[in-house]
Formats: sequence, C-alpha cells, structure tokens
Amino acid sequence: MNPVIPLMLVGTLFGFAVGQTYISKYTGIILANVYQSFTTGDKKLFYESVFKGLGVIGVSALFDSSIQFIVALMGWNWRKTLCFYIQNVYFKKSLFYKIIAFNDNIDNPDQRITSDIDKFTTLLASIVSNCITGPMVVIYYTYLCYTTIEWYAPLIVYAYFFLGYFVNKLVISPMVSINYLQDKLEGDFRYLHQRVRNFSESIALFNYSKNKSNKPKRKTSDASTTLRKSDSVDFSEESADESTVINRKNRTPFTKTGNTKSSISEEKRKKLEEEFLVEERQAKIQFESLLANKKRVIFWNFGLTTTSDLFTYLSPLVNYFIIAMPVFFLHTKSALLPAEVTVQSYNCIMLASGFSQYINVSTNISDLAGFISRISSMIEVCSKVLNDDSYETETSSLNEKDGSNDSLNQEIHVNTTNRSIRLNQGENIILDDITYFTPKGNQLFSNITVCIEKGKNLLIMGPSGSGKSSLIRVINGLWPFFKGRINRPESDKIFFLPQQPYLIFGELEEQILYPLSKKDKRIPKKQLRELFARLDIDYLLDRENFIKKSAQINDLTHNWLNSLSPGEQQLISIIRLLYHSPQFALLDEATSSIPQSLEEKVYQIAKELNITIISVGHRVSLLKHHDNLLRFDKYKNWFFEEIDHNQ
Amino acid sequence: MNPVIPLMLVGTLFGFAVGQTYISKYTGIILANVYQSFTTGDKKLFYESVFKGLGVIGVSALFDSSIQFIVALMGWNWRKTLCFYIQNVYFKKSLFYKIIAFNDNIDNPDQRITSDIDKFTTLLASIVSNCITGPMVVIYYTYLCYTTIEWYAPLIVYAYFFLGYFVNKLVISPMVSINYLQDKLEGDFRYLHQRVRNFSESIALFNYSKNKSNKPKRKTSDASTTLRKSDSVDFSEESADESTVINRKNRTPFTKTGNTKSSISEEKRKKLEEEFLVEERQAKIQFESLLANKKRVIFWNFGLTTTSDLFTYLSPLVNYFIIAMPVFFLHTKSALLPAEVTVQSYNCIMLASGFSQYINVSTNISDLAGFISRISSMIEVCSKVLNDDSYETETSSLNEKDGSNDSLNQEIHVNTTNRSIRLNQGENIILDDITYFTPKGNQLFSNITVCIEKGKNLLIMGPSGSGKSSLIRVINGLWPFFKGRINRPESDKIFFLPQQPYLIFGELEEQILYPLSKKDKRIPKKQLRELFARLDIDYLLDRENFIKKSAQINDLTHNWLNSLSPGEQQLISIIRLLYHSPQFALLDEATSSIPQSLEEKVYQIAKELNITIISVGHRVSLLKHHDNLLRFDKYKNWFFEEIDHNQ
Repeated sequence: MNPVIPLMLVGTLFGFAVGQTYISKYTGIILANVYQSFTTGDKKLFYESVFKGLGVIGVSALFDSSIQFIVALMGWNWRKTLCFYIQNVYFKKSLFYKIIAFNDNIDNPDQRITSDIDKFTTLLASIVSNCITGPMVVIYYTYLCYTTIEWYAPLIVYAYFFLGYFVNKLVISPMVSINYLQDKLEGDFRYLHQRVRNFSESIALFNYSKNKSNKPKRKTSDASTTLRKSDSVDFSEESADESTVINRKNRTPFTKTGNTKSSISEEKRKKLEEEFLVEERQAKIQFESLLANKKRVIFWNFGLTTTSDLFTYLSPLVNYFIIAMPVFFLHTKSALLPAEVTVQSYNCIMLASGFSQYINVSTNISDLAGFISRISSMIEVCSKVLNDDSYETETSSLNEKDGSNDSLNQEIHVNTTNRSIRLNQGENIILDDITYFTPKGNQLFSNITVCIEKGKNLLIMGPSGSGKSSLIRVINGLWPFFKGRINRPESDKIFFLPQQPYLIFGELEEQILYPLSKKDKRIPKKQLRELFARLDIDYLLDRENFIKKSAQINDLTHNWLNSLSPGEQQLISIIRLLYHSPQFALLDEATSSIPQSLEEKVYQIAKELNITIISVGHRVSLLKHHDNLLRFDKYKNWFFEEIDHNQ
Repeated sequence: MNPVIPLMLVGTLFGFAVGQTYISKYTGIILANVYQSFTTGDKKLFYESVFKGLGVIGVSALFDSSIQFIVALMGWNWRKTLCFYIQNVYFKKSLFYKIIAFNDNIDNPDQRITSDIDKFTTLLASIVSNCITGPMVVIYYTYLCYTTIEWYAPLIVYAYFFLGYFVNKLVISPMVSINYLQDKLEGDFRYLHQRVRNFSESIALFNYSKNKSNKPKRKTSDASTTLRKSDSVDFSEESADESTVINRKNRTPFTKTGNTKSSISEEKRKKLEEEFLVEERQAKIQFESLLANKKRVIFWNFGLTTTSDLFTYLSPLVNYFIIAMPVFFLHTKSALLPAEVTVQSYNCIMLASGFSQYINVSTNISDLAGFISRISSMIEVCSKVLNDDSYETETSSLNEKDGSNDSLNQEIHVNTTNRSIRLNQGENIILDDITYFTPKGNQLFSNITVCIEKGKNLLIMGPSGSGKSSLIRVINGLWPFFKGRINRPESDKIFFLPQQPYLIFGELEEQILYPLSKKDKRIPKKQLRELFARLDIDYLLDRENFIKKSAQINDLTHNWLNSLSPGEQQLISIIRLLYHSPQFALLDEATSSIPQSLEEKVYQIAKELNITIISVGHRVSLLKHHDNLLRFDKYKNWFFEEIDHNQ
C-alpha cells in the first residue's frame, strides 16, 4: 500500500488542527468585545465584533467538519490497508484453513476481518485525531493562560488534569477484559445464527412438523376430505408402543428406549408446549449470556461516565479559582474588567478542553485495547503459522524427468511390509514410509509405503474415521506428516474432489474454471454445453440462461447454485475435474450422490482423458474401476492389493 | 416481555431530564454571580457562588451520567425484547428455512438478528433520550428567555432552528439509500468470509499446492534426499500434453481442452505469479465495492457535518443579536449589566442547544431509517410468510385409529396409474395424486399416488435433480405442493436424515437426543455406549471424555465434532435415528459415506426396531433392503414397483 496517502491525510489533519486551534483564540476575544459593547453600549465595537465573529465561526465550522471528514477518510484508508493486508496473509498458503483447523486460539477469524477491523480503524482514527488536536490546544492555551493570567494558571489546570486522569485510569482498567469478552460473545452469537442459516434445511426438517402438530386447527372446511388427529397428542404413540415394543425387547441394545418411552411422551408433550427448538434455545442462551455481560459493560460505563463528567463539569469552577486568585487570594487587584474575565475564563476553558480530549481518548482506549488484542493476536498467529515448520509438509515436487535416469527405476525395500515398489518418479505419486497424525495429534497410520502409478487407479477403503480422507489430505499437502517422504508430480497436476462439493459464487462457467477464473481463461459456449450434456445436466445451463435474462446472476448473494441437489453439485465438480483433466485426481467419495450409471461414465471418461484416479469409497461397485486397493482396518493395519478383474 | 421495565426506564429518564433541565438554570445564575463578584471584588458573593456551584455541578454531572446509563439500559432492554421477539418468530414453524429458501427479499437474516438490532436499539435509545430532554430544555428556556429578555427572543431562536432543520433535511434525504446499501454490502462481505470459513478445507485443497509450488526453495539441506523440481514450471505439463493429447482427440467432447492447452499454461503461470485465489479475489472485489460506497457515505457526511456545524457555531451570534436588540436596535436601554448579559446569553444558548439536539437526531435519523427498513422488512416478511397459505402444505396427521373403522381399509382408485392402494390410514404414509413444484416454480412430478405401508421399506431412485429429495421435503411438509393430498402419521413419528449430517453444538449425548435436549431427557451412559459400540464408533465417546477432562467442551465454539469424517457424522445421525426409533425414517442418501457392511447393519437394526425406511439412493446394493421401488426418469415419469428379492 502507498504510504503517501495516509501521511498526506495525517498532514492535512495536522494543518486543520493548527488552523482551528489558532482561530479559536479569536472566539474568546470577540466574545469579550461583544460583552464590552453590551456593557458600554458601543455600537461600532458590536458591529465590528459580530462581523469578525461571522468569519471566525464560518472558518471554524469548516475546519471542524473537515477534521471529521479527514478522520473518517483516515479510518477508511486504514481499514482498506489493514483488511487487504490481513486478507493477503489469510489466503496465503491456505492459512485460513490452518487457522480454522489446527489453531484453537483464534475464534471467529472471519469476524475479525470483516467487522473488528472496521471498528478498530474507525476508533483509532478518532483517537489519533484527538491526539493531534489535543496537544496543540494544550500547548497554545498554556501559552495564552500564562500571558493573560499568570504562571500558576496552567499549572493548576495541569494538576487538575492529572488527578482526573488517574481516577479515570483506575475505573477503566477492569473494563478491558469485559469489553473483550463482549466482542467474543457477540461473535459467537453471530456464528450460531450463521450456522442456523447454513443448515436451515436440516434444522427445518427435524423440527418443522413438531411445530405443526401443535398448531391450533386450521381450515375446518378441510375436515370433510381428510381425517384429523384427535385432541390426545400421544394416543397413537402409546398404541404404537403396544404393537412394537415386543419386537424390540431382548433383541437389540436399544430396548432401553422402550422402557423409558412413556416418560418421553410426557416430556415430549411438555416440550411441544414450549415449542422451543434446540437451536432456538441455544441461540437464546447465547444471547442471554451476551446480554448479561453487556449489562456489566453498561454498569461499568456508568461509573466511568460519572467520574469523567464530574471532572469535566467541575473544571469551570477550577477556572474561577484561577481567575479569582489576584482578587481574593493574592490581593494584587481589587476587581477585574468584564472583558478580562471573559478572555481569561475562555483560555482556561480551552486548556481544560484540550485535556478532556485525553479523557475521551482514555475512555476509548479500553475498547481499542480489545480490538487491538483481537486483531493483533490474529496477525500474530498468522505469521506464526506461516513461519512454523511443524505445520509444513515435507512434500516435494519431482519433475526432473530429464535428470538422473538412474533414479527413475529405483527399488525401495521397506522392512515393515516386505514389499518393494518400482519408482517412476516423474509420473507417479509415491508415499515412502509415511507416518501421519490427525491435527490433534492422534496417530493414524504408520509406515505406509505406496506407489500410485500413473494410469493405475487406486481405491482406498476402510471403516469410517480410519484415516482415509486424512491420507488424501496428507497427499495433497494440507496436513503435515511426521515421518517418511512423499514424492508427487507438480501440484497443479493433482486435482481434488471432496465429498461435499464446493461451489463458488459465480456462474456455471466459473464453477468449471475454478480454481482458475474468467480472468485467466474462458470456456467456449459450445464446449461448455458438451461438457454438461455428457453428464446429462445441460438443463442447468438453460436454467442459468433464464436467470441471467432476468438479470439476477450478477448479484453475488443470489446464490442459486446452492439450491441444487447434492448430486447435481457433485456432477458440477466432476465436470470441473474433467475440464481440467489433471494427471491425478483424488476423489473423496465424490461420486456418492450420483447414479451408478453416471458413476461408470465418469470413470470411463477419466480413463479416456488419462486421468489417474485415487478414490476413497465404500461401495464394492467401485472396485471394477480401479486397479489397486489400499485397505485400512480399524486396528490401524493397512493392506495394498492388486484388484483382479477376472475374478 | 414485561412492559413495566421499559416504561419505568422511560419514566426515570424523564425524571432525570426534568431534574437536569431545572438545575441547569442555576448554572447560568451562578456564572453571572461569579462574574459579578469578579467585577465588584465581592468576596462573599464569590464564595457563596462557588459553594452553590459545587453542588449544582455535582448533581448535574450525576444526572448526565445517569441519563447515559439509562439510555444504555433502555437500548439493552429493547434489544433483548426485539431480539427475543424476532428469534421467536424466526424459529417458529421453521420460518428461517422459508425465508432463506423461498424468499429473495431478505438478505442476511442472521445479520439482521445479531447485529442490526443491536445498532438499531442503541441508536433509537439515544434518539429517544434526545427527544425527551430536547423538548424539555426548549420549553423551559423559552419561558426563561421570555422572562429575562423579551417575547422576540424565543421567536428568533425558533426561526433560526427551523431554517437549520430544513437545510439539514435537504442534505440528509439522499443518504438513506446510501447508508442502507452500506449495511447490505457489509453483510455480503461478512457472508463471503463466513463461507470461506465454512468451506475452508475444500478451498485449501484446491489451492494449497498452487501456492506451494510458487514458493522460493526452502531447506536446501533436504535437496540430497529428495529430488527437486527444475526451474521450468511447465516442462512436465508440455510433456504430459505430448503423451495424452492423442488419446483425447476424436474420442471425447473434451478435445477442445487439448487445443487451448498451451495457452492455459501461459495464463496459469501468470496466475501463479499473481497468487490470487478465486475466493481471495471475490472477497477483495466485495470489499472494494464496500469501500467505494463507504467513500460516498463519508463525502455525504462531510456535507452534513458542515451544515450542522455551521448552524451550531453561528447560534451564539444569533444570541448576541437578541441580547443587542434593546441596546442597539430598539434603543430601550443604553447598556447592559455584565450579569444580565451572562444570564441572557446563557438562556439563549441553552434554548439553541435544545434545538441542536434535534439536529443531532436528524443526523441519526438517516442511519435509523436504514435499520428500521432492514428490521421491519424482516418482521414484515416473517409475518407474511407465517400467514401466507401458499407457503403452507396441506398435510394432515391421521391418528383417529379409534374413530371411523370404515375408513381404515378404504380403496382409492387412481385413474392415471390404474393402481389402487389399500389405505391403512393410521399407520401408513399416503401420497394421493400429488403434484409438486420447486420453490422457484418448476414443476417436478405430477399425480404421484403412492402408499408407503408400515413395515415395507421404499427406495426412491432416479437421476440427479429429478426431484427425489424434493419429494422427501414434500412428505416432510417442508415444501408446499399444489395438488393432491398427503396423509401421514403424526409428525414426531417421522424422522429425517439428510445426506449432509447436521450436528448441533453440544456433546455426543445431545447429538443423539436431538431434536430433544438434555432438559427433556437423558441417555444412561451404558446405553449410549451400547448405541455407539453397535456401529463401531464407541471410540468417539472416549475421545469426548478426553476432551471433557481437558475442560474444553463447555465452550460452544470448541466444535470438535465438525472435525469428524463425513462417515462418522452420518453414523452419529444414524444413531440418532435408531435411538428415537420412529415409525418412519426418510433417509436422503444418509448412508452414502459409510461402509457397505455397516449400511447392512443399519437396515437390519431398523427392521428389528420396526422402523419403516424410505430411502433416496443410487446404489443397486440398496435394493435388497427395500420392498418397493419408486423410480423417476428424466422425462418426469414415475414408476412404482415391487422389488422381487427372489430374482
């Protein structure tokens, strides 16, 4: 980012602050002159003062709004810089994933980027502005107080200020943690509601009917065509028990459900009356704890505003003591002229106001501290993760095909399995004696040595949670591993399809181009249609054209692709794979939602395109599309077998 | 919500405002007295005034901070009421789903609940406070101006105020839409980052390696053990082309990829240099459009503050004209006493300040209008959706088993299929001549008549996007249908398992209890373990115990279950189903991620528990677990067949 603009802004702010401070002096003088014109009846002085006053006030107002304007621009500019900076780091080397998956210290990283930075920079800009104008006012009016009154005048104002400052400090210190907690609670609350939004369908399906059945009867005219439930809610439940409970008993470990069934129906009914969903309850509990802490914030703020108000309100009295000094205490004067009083009092007030800007700053510091802690901890963790080798994987890309031919056909003898694998390093993916763990540190498999030869599809099978997907992550370089060596072709020759398809915001063409984008490349319309037609989903293109015509697609939030069925989503990401046609494709149950006939087609097209597929899957029907099988069992054993298609 | 507390708060606020207004009068008088003591050298008057001043100021400061405190409490209280109110509506009858799925008018409903309400109530409270204290100050000081000066004094201040008000109004009117847009942009920006957070793994997998390959070489000491890629990035890419492009040509529609391949590698490399992910670019584009609009907001604010500053700053001059009237214009007095000037000027200032509170209000009104529009449109849509029958489904629960026995064995003759179905209404799910659409209005299937008999599992098969899951939604009552009739047992006897398992925030026990919660019921430890052991994932309980011991689980954000594999997540929701053992279960590819052996076990246990399963699936292997098959084709035909297990 260009440092000229922020510096220019601060410079302009400084200039305006100087101007405003200087011109403010005349306000006091004009005030005194007007007073004098009133008490003396001097018409000329009155007109002169008012005329000058108009100019001073106009310029002063303009300075003031300009300063606010520049403060806003500064905040804007800083937000821009900071947000782009963090975005750059956040997206670098998939740091966002590492922070979310491996690091528990950073809650709600997205909120820090989108919301905290905004609040922080806005607040910081106002504090900086106060810090620039404050000292200026203080210095200038120290000088004016000294010249119009005496040396003790600024000293008394100083003493008063420091007293106020320390009292304030005392009140603020416990607020930092409360404010910090408040931000965290607000973030959690937001996340909870986002989750409801993201899983709205599942939640609705689980809960929709429950509310329905509790609803008062509607449309009695329907009663003739459909029979309605009786008033007793759990009647059929009990009868269901009678008929089914026998079946259940002594046969399954679930018989206990039967024993407590009648007590559920009691509680269920009570719950129905409450009509509270689990999510609703959680959102409300979260909101309540947020409210509770907010109440603490409000009470502490009460203490804070009381002390700082007292401080501000009492400062005129302090000024009067200063002005009164020569008359009532030092007895150097018997009385003061009205104009004298006005100017002196004005100068003292301005000096005090310069200080009270600091008091405002210290009120805001507690908020600022919260934001700084949230944002800096994020930057800190980012740079730590970025530089920490333990998050790094030891993969290396092998491309020196023209290089050492000796190593092309190398034999590695692995003791644990007594199997030797021929390495053809430029073309194959080779796991050499790999031991890997989950990010939480649970060991998954050790000493896996597998060569995934180009052209020979590999199927990875095993029980749930045994570490199949983790191996895919290790091969991809997403997860670190703690022993061994992985050799694989260059990264853009490997493609990954997760089970939960990831669709970006964008048109179908952009879905297919991903991770490239339209800026990099375009797909001709005809080719796009052929791609979709081959997998029988070309109607999606028509649907998109229709939406395009109604001019809704440019809206990023009109995310119509999310309303596609899981199968359609998987097909789109499969087309993405076929379009990019990499050397290797890692399919993590990526065909689980599409019909078997289409699945066969996909493997067939992949073969035609020379894509070597490494699948994770459960279905026996997958076996026929693969040449080798890597089988895991739940005792952390692994077996590598060739699949015999002639069986 | 109890209306007593808000009323009490407003009452207290009113009381404090009265107190503060009344006491503020004395500030002017004391000021005048101190002035007089200075010009006359009256020591007694000085001490008396200062003593009184201390009291007045102390009380005044306390009033002020109390008012701020009550304003904060009011905002807090309103937020509580409004948020709970909207939460109640939002979760009622799964409105959140309907709003998200069917309604395009409400963007970011979660943000409106979590963030907009907070801002709105905070702002509203401050506006209300200004609206209470403002008129009070205006009325009281109108009276004081009239008594201390003349009838024209308040009139001039009024005229000045209305001028300022209309100028202000002129400036504000275009800002409403800009501020509204700003909120929307901030919301979209937040959503984009949330999405990155939710799909972090997929995004990372697609992009991780890309960044890696572009990194400068690290750890040269490793070079001895692993071969490193040469400097040429696309060398192997080109060689890959040579070997594979022949294969591709003339065989697949994907040959065009081959033709443009060399130009990709150019652009790919350029992209690698840029190192921008698609998501990063989107987040940045979104942020930039946000920044652009924010700039407009700042510029408009500049105009607004300039005019309102000018108005505020010029008001002392107006006061001086008022005070000068008798001396310089009406010539009723030759001069004024200093104390007179002080009191009169103070009264005019206070009257003006009362009005300028309104100016502040109008500055905030534009923000407030934005929030009101966002929140009220949400409430509006909520109540519209809640009362709109077109969102409603026509399902009815049939439970009158003791009722008309005649209807228990009723024959419905359907012309379209010439098939008659025996209805056993209390036990079966019956779709009678159902025609249904997508929420966007695309017709899916028409005149489907199916009886899903208790005890006879039904498998629904068909191509992707043909409307299988939609039928599940229709049966569940989540989607409306436009013709026909559905009879089904009471809602809590039907259970739904989506393909993407939904895990709540909470412990494993709570996962299983869902949609019930621990408040309703507990599962004995032993039973819980049996449930998990039966599906071979009892190790999850051990893992949870371990996490519990390290005291992390109570933290809502420590969402460890999200790190489970899709298979483990599906198993948890299957255990949920088995625990609740409803009459019917709708499985929308809910076993797609678990091994075939476990799948068989699940269907077997379900049979033991007398759960009738309606599955959506693709695998032929599923056929053996079902009795009937409902098959869709892509020409919108449907076929109902009995599955012959003896074949």
